[in-house]
Amino acid sequence: MDVIVGGGVVGLSVAWRLAREGRPVTVVDPAPASGASHAAAGMLAPVSEVTYTEAPLLRLGVAALRRWPAFASALAEDAALPPAGPEEVGGLDLRAEGTLDVAFGADDMAALDELAAFMEKLDLPVERLTGRECRRLEPMLAPSVRGGLLAPGDAWVNPRRVTAALLAALERRGVPVVRARVSELVRTDGAVTGVRLAEPPAVPGEGRGSAPLAATGGRAGGEVLAAGRVVLAAGAWSGELAEVPVRPVKGQIMRLRSPQPLLTRCVRGTVHGSPVYLVPRGDGELVVGATQEELGYDTRVTAGGLYELLRDARELVPGVTELEVADVVAGLRPGTPDNLPVIGPGRTPGLTYATGHHRGGVLMAPLTAAILMGEESELAALCSPGRFQEIS
Amino acid sequence: MDVIVGGGVVGLSVAWRLAREGRPVTVVDPAPASGASHAAAGMLAPVSEVTYTEAPLLRLGVAALRRWPAFASALAEDAALPPAGPEEVGGLDLRAEGTLDVAFGADDMAALDELAAFMEKLDLPVERLTGRECRRLEPMLAPSVRGGLLAPGDAWVNPRRVTAALLAALERRGVPVVRARVSELVRTDGAVTGVRLAEPPAVPGEGRGSAPLAATGGRAGGEVLAAGRVVLAAGAWSGELAEVPVRPVKGQIMRLRSPQPLLTRCVRGTVHGSPVYLVPRGDGELVVGATQEELGYDTRVTAGGLYELLRDARELVPGVTELEVADVVAGLRPGTPDNLPVIGPGRTPGLTYATGHHRGGVLMAPLTAAILMGEESELAALCSPGRFQEIS
Repeated sequence: MDVIVGGGVVGLSVAWRLAREGRPVTVVDPAPASGASHAAAGMLAPVSEVTYTEAPLLRLGVAALRRWPAFASALAEDAALPPAGPEEVGGLDLRAEGTLDVAFGADDMAALDELAAFMEKLDLPVERLTGRECRRLEPMLAPSVRGGLLAPGDAWVNPRRVTAALLAALERRGVPVVRARVSELVRTDGAVTGVRLAEPPAVPGEGRGSAPLAATGGRAGGEVLAAGRVVLAAGAWSGELAEVPVRPVKGQIMRLRSPQPLLTRCVRGTVHGSPVYLVPRGDGELVVGATQEELGYDTRVTAGGLYELLRDARELVPGVTELEVADVVAGLRPGTPDNLPVIGPGRTPGLTYATGHHRGGVLMAPLTAAILMGEESELAALCSPGRFQEIS
Repeated sequence: MDVIVGGGVVGLSVAWRLAREGRPVTVVDPAPASGASHAAAGMLAPVSEVTYTEAPLLRLGVAALRRWPAFASALAEDAALPPAGPEEVGGLDLRAEGTLDVAFGADDMAALDELAAFMEKLDLPVERLTGRECRRLEPMLAPSVRGGLLAPGDAWVNPRRVTAALLAALERRGVPVVRARVSELVRTDGAVTGVRLAEPPAVPGEGRGSAPLAATGGRAGGEVLAAGRVVLAAGAWSGELAEVPVRPVKGQIMRLRSPQPLLTRCVRGTVHGSPVYLVPRGDGELVVGATQEELGYDTRVTAGGLYELLRDARELVPGVTELEVADVVAGLRPGTPDNLPVIGPGRTPGLTYATGHHRGGVLMAPLTAAILMGEESELAALCSPGRFQEIS
């Protein structure tokens, strides 16, 4: 049996894929779908996301985006989601109106020019727009926007609906999701042969290991789940269980509620040197993200984080000030030294990695599952654990 | 029997005072202590609160502050609160380290000078400070603070603890608090003789009238509570029940959590033309308030409101950016045309007003109860309903 450690969008996608192939699989997570996947905005935006210094990440992202429509259709069917309108695939709120990257100053304009040239060299469809053209597409943009770059193929999805659908699909297929924390990987003769579940904490409701005993399906703390293979998909916590160079990168993100949609596309820009994006949902939600902070496992929502998001969002779209604040959360992205994920087996028999997706976990979840099924050997090489000495 | 319509800090204080005098009294509120009192910062700051154009409000405020220490001691005893440390009266977090009003620019400095001169003419203790002196008192103040005015007698209290203590004291004295909305005042031959309770709403948990039937003490909707006197203390909703010129003035307010106290005094200032204040609590909470918005009964927390609070708080005390955001709420202050409260009987027999306290409900709650007991005839004249044609 495969044991997937981590019930975020990556772990659940891998588990679902394995289950569809008829493979026995179990997911272990004290609080599935509550980590970075819960905080994520859900941009499927390989083109606008990268800088021209990150060609491998762009290749991965473009391949990952290509997998999303089929993934979403199959997931909606398997989770028995009710049918949705033409702009939404199966209630996941998958939309593909594109991303508009806007510029305010001369520096931003030059950066967009460089990015456009790079994209065109790679035959990726982008369109350079004037400020006026940007506002014609998105009338709520600030008058100070001087130009933009439209990536018409970029898409986005509601990650909370994706993880809910994945959990529903797994339940329909009878895949156990054990609500417990993994305290360690169990090793036998140098190979990983299972996971040990943490003792339930003395005080229920405390921190990540908060699942009460009853919710673990009757399993007592300290118990070992034997596994033919362990897939480590524990996101920012992966480094606590194995020697993988993953660190937490804190992101604070805000959800606003809009009576009428302010935008039809994802809009992003660089304000005061920090990138900000606005993601509109079909239900009137407008997501504003995201800070990037290197503060360890700190998940506090801070005055400074909110201030930065609000200040920058106002610069892009002044009308956001009228919107209601629905939700503010902080999550921890699993960052790696080269910003590429870590996917596949490493040096230790029995252990496979599916982690380190940093800002791209939602985008790359379907691709990650495919890589683990051996479908993408060329892309797999880019994500190989072997590139890190610790786990090669 | 007196029926008090409204279970905010004013209504509860009046009810408690009546109960202590042995008078039969009932409070009616669908959700006691959840309105403006829940949002309030709790500044007891008559000196720093007013401008020199508002002498009557200042007189009221100074008299109101004088009543607070005895009120707090008696309340702590009557509510059987556990004894607190030397800086806290009875767990209400009543503190009296004073308010520091700071100035950034030449205009602010001139305004502080004028205010200081006005205060000195009234024999009110204030102290004019340089920027350096301000930072000696409060080292976390921004370096750009150029001067300040210290009102050493100003105090503050935790309003949520005050209303909780009032509810506890009322319970100990057997005063009923009926969890229901009042739909109208019942009139007989031109006199108010009771209140009609609203039908319970069809969907429990919706809006202000959300108390389920069981919580009204078994009273059915539509029932009339007979009253020898009705005291209207319904805050911003008072104008919905009687012809009193009270309007809702929205305020958004934020509570931050500070591991170490950033401030020892209340600090306020005018940033970008809007006033902002920071109120430190004994438990490490730092309250940042407040917007003033004329938007009717809108209680949405908005992106623009949060932005304004955060921007202005950062200007006063840059270190707030590191603090965790614990709580953001919006409340509705009961504003009047002349910014003075409406206290006492009006034209209609059987109806007494205790409303229109605007920004001063917490400060003036003990004084309001005293005025209704006939203890402050001179101040009562300032607050007389007779000054408004509608109710005179």
